[in-house]
Amino acid sequence: MADQYAQAREDNRPPGIPALRWEEPPEGPVLVLLDQTRLPAQEVELVCTDAPALVEAIRSLAVRGAPLLGIAGAYGVALAAARGFDVDDAADALAGARPTAVNLSVGVHRARSAYHTALAETGDPLLAAPAALAAARQLHREDARASARMAEHGLALLDELLPAGGHRILTHCNTGALVSGGEGTAFAVALAAHRAGRLRRLWVDETRPLLQGARLTAYEAARNGLAYTLLADNAAGSLFAAGEVDAVLIGADRIAADGSVANKVGSYPLAVLARYHHVPFIVVAPVTTVDERTPDGASIEVEQRPGHEVTELAAPQVPGTGAGGGIPVAPLGTQAYNPAFDVTPPELVTAIVTEQGALSPVTAEGLAELCARSRRAAEEHGRG
Amino acid sequence: MADQYAQAREDNRPPGIPALRWEEPPEGPVLVLLDQTRLPAQEVELVCTDAPALVEAIRSLAVRGAPLLGIAGAYGVALAAARGFDVDDAADALAGARPTAVNLSVGVHRARSAYHTALAETGDPLLAAPAALAAARQLHREDARASARMAEHGLALLDELLPAGGHRILTHCNTGALVSGGEGTAFAVALAAHRAGRLRRLWVDETRPLLQGARLTAYEAARNGLAYTLLADNAAGSLFAAGEVDAVLIGADRIAADGSVANKVGSYPLAVLARYHHVPFIVVAPVTTVDERTPDGASIEVEQRPGHEVTELAAPQVPGTGAGGGIPVAPLGTQAYNPAFDVTPPELVTAIVTEQGALSPVTAEGLAELCARSRRAAEEHGRG
Repeated sequence: MADQYAQAREDNRPPGIPALRWEEPPEGPVLVLLDQTRLPAQEVELVCTDAPALVEAIRSLAVRGAPLLGIAGAYGVALAAARGFDVDDAADALAGARPTAVNLSVGVHRARSAYHTALAETGDPLLAAPAALAAARQLHREDARASARMAEHGLALLDELLPAGGHRILTHCNTGALVSGGEGTAFAVALAAHRAGRLRRLWVDETRPLLQGARLTAYEAARNGLAYTLLADNAAGSLFAAGEVDAVLIGADRIAADGSVANKVGSYPLAVLARYHHVPFIVVAPVTTVDERTPDGASIEVEQRPGHEVTELAAPQVPGTGAGGGIPVAPLGTQAYNPAFDVTPPELVTAIVTEQGALSPVTAEGLAELCARSRRAAEEHGRG
Repeated sequence: MADQYAQAREDNRPPGIPALRWEEPPEGPVLVLLDQTRLPAQEVELVCTDAPALVEAIRSLAVRGAPLLGIAGAYGVALAAARGFDVDDAADALAGARPTAVNLSVGVHRARSAYHTALAETGDPLLAAPAALAAARQLHREDARASARMAEHGLALLDELLPAGGHRILTHCNTGALVSGGEGTAFAVALAAHRAGRLRRLWVDETRPLLQGARLTAYEAARNGLAYTLLADNAAGSLFAAGEVDAVLIGADRIAADGSVANKVGSYPLAVLARYHHVPFIVVAPVTTVDERTPDGASIEVEQRPGHEVTELAAPQVPGTGAGGGIPVAPLGTQAYNPAFDVTPPELVTAIVTEQGALSPVTAEGLAELCARSRRAAEEHGRG
């Protein structure tokens, strides 16, 4: 264990800047994002005045994380409507900005449907715009509530699987308040365990190539006062072999109808390691992440990202000279394989925790039932 | 597959600068190293005039790789002897510079023994110094020969395991001419397959945190004209799942008597993935890597390196502001777990390829027999 810094940061507090907010200054409505590409070095806000700006922010990962992408997409439709742009054009562009996280297109669809329903009723685009905004706000609130429920269900599952307590949890990528209207998915469960005094350590995979673990999860863990340790993704194997991991908690970008889970690249190797070491591998995601129209893992489109994310080191505070704006580390001309996600088959997933409860074992029937329960709950709350 | 660079480098040739060489300028003998921390951006040589300078070069990884460390250690002893320093002090410091690669202490021991034998015979330290140098040179030559033999045996094994040809090989860290008196260990096998027209692709793990794959293996692959593709270590799981890996070839820093293999951190997760996907996992290392005095994997000391290697991005061409001289990517105060190596148990190793032949399955008895064969061969060549 190597600990290089004796000095703790003095502002060890939960994030003060929300990942995303809607504002209405006199010059017109805007969507304000915390630019996640600049964390943890800088807390900079990015103001989007139209849908193309938001599309760019989504592509550059200034805003990211499956649940938050859904919320952002919905607000993006509302923004286009409020500013008088073509809502369907904006919705199409937003929904296609990143292909893997299904929440994005679900969020876009919710706001667009609300807009068109209101438009059909009133015949006036300007009267329909508030309906899109109301849908976005509702999704935002729902996600916060879902986050709290996932944390409850996830903690209950952890306590059931690991009755001895003192959980040592390994997580990958970033799944906290930065990806959510609430406190996140997998990270929210770890945070609940921390608050309950049952988290011994959060092992944080750095998550190459974009270092969401090192940059964002470590930032959220530090600000929430968790006992956490960062590691190169590679080193997770050593932790498993040493018996230092009690459970793996990750999020999801899309869950196919058969229970296959697309999540940040590196999740699948963790699932294989967890299976080999008989460690629970738990996926935490809202039901909106389940895509019943994607039958199985092979049908999930995995986004391939630019090779320079691997061949160059990028740090926002140091502009580099590479083709991607980073510092070249590989020889010029090096080709890179850079899938953003991988797919874990259901047989390697111990449980999927949603706001509707935990599903274990993971089966197509169980998932379908969770989705049906979620639809019934939505109808009871009158948004159906 | 993301390929960012259309322009290939024009100097696509094998490395012109050897990883290490002994020189005798008028001002006294020196050991000249190719500074591997500056590759591939800069080809800079580092001149060591005494053993402490070499110890520093070993610690900073300017010179690295198990076989080359053995050679460097032997030359370091020769340097101390030729310059009139205390040979035992130098030998102790060199042997202890890094704890995991057994070759380092083996090389140091060879030169030191030669020195003391000559000293006992002549009684004159200055007459004994050439004996240490002769031992270093012999080790250097032997390593080059061993490298060529490993390449032959490794290619024969590949062809046996994968009769269809068109091998797609995944490798981790750097195991080529930069770590060897010859063309390396695992990389030498891939190179032999390439020359035989039977390498379809070399998948190169970037090898976090120090990026030996991105910086060094890609450099050697490019210069030798191999079809190679770089990936974040995390993405290897996706390649296995897609059936894109026919075999894994790695080196070793120490092989325990039971066949447990210590190698660059990230090797063990690959072994688990390879087993899960029924892909051969092949270790290529000279017999000197086998440490019969280390009974098993649990007895291997794994070097823990500074956390800043994980919490900061380091690039030689861009000095950063972090405690380790890099660019901070994690919040200040972040603790990191940074083992340099991991240990793969023999049951996950398909074969160990040495200059004395391939051993499969890997058993304590088989390893002992390989070591005995190697000792007999050495005695026949008159160095025993």
